[in-house]
Amino acid sequence: MSAYTVEIRVMPRASLLDPQGQAVQHALQALGFRDVASVRAGKHLVVEVDAPTRDEAAARARTMCDRLLANPVTEDYECIVSP
Amino acid sequence: MSAYTVEIRVMPRASLLDPQGQAVQHALQALGFRDVASVRAGKHLVVEVDAPTRDEAAARARTMCDRLLANPVTEDYECIVSP
Repeated sequence: MSAYTVEIRVMPRASLLDPQGQAVQHALQALGFRDVASVRAGKHLVVEVDAPTRDEAAARARTMCDRLLANPVTEDYECIVSP
Repeated sequence: MSAYTVEIRVMPRASLLDPQGQAVQHALQALGFRDVASVRAGKHLVVEVDAPTRDEAAARARTMCDRLLANPVTEDYECIVSP
């Protein structure tokens, strides 16, 4: 078993409204950042997993996303394993 | 003026406790993911900025982080501009 670091990015689907991102955009514009055309807001998770192989670590991270970390209806996710 | 996409990652400082990450770790372990050694939870923002140059877009994104998007006491941030 080796320790792998998995970087997981969970973002709202492109086709859906993103109220949190819109709130951030409005707050930025109110602060004077008028050149902000859009903001999308999501989560970034860094998970340390013990797994026998790198592929197995990636597979476990995807299962975690499917079961807990991402909403399969409204969010997309991406997992990057290192080293 | 060109449109630039800035990917901003805001994470809790490594030296600080991360209660949100710990909550996710406990939830994963309760679901049976016993090989999760740690979880750190942060934000991922994708900001579309109109700016004259790529460097200017990066500078504006850093100012946004300093003024609104990141807590300078508890969080670190990273900005990646594309294209």
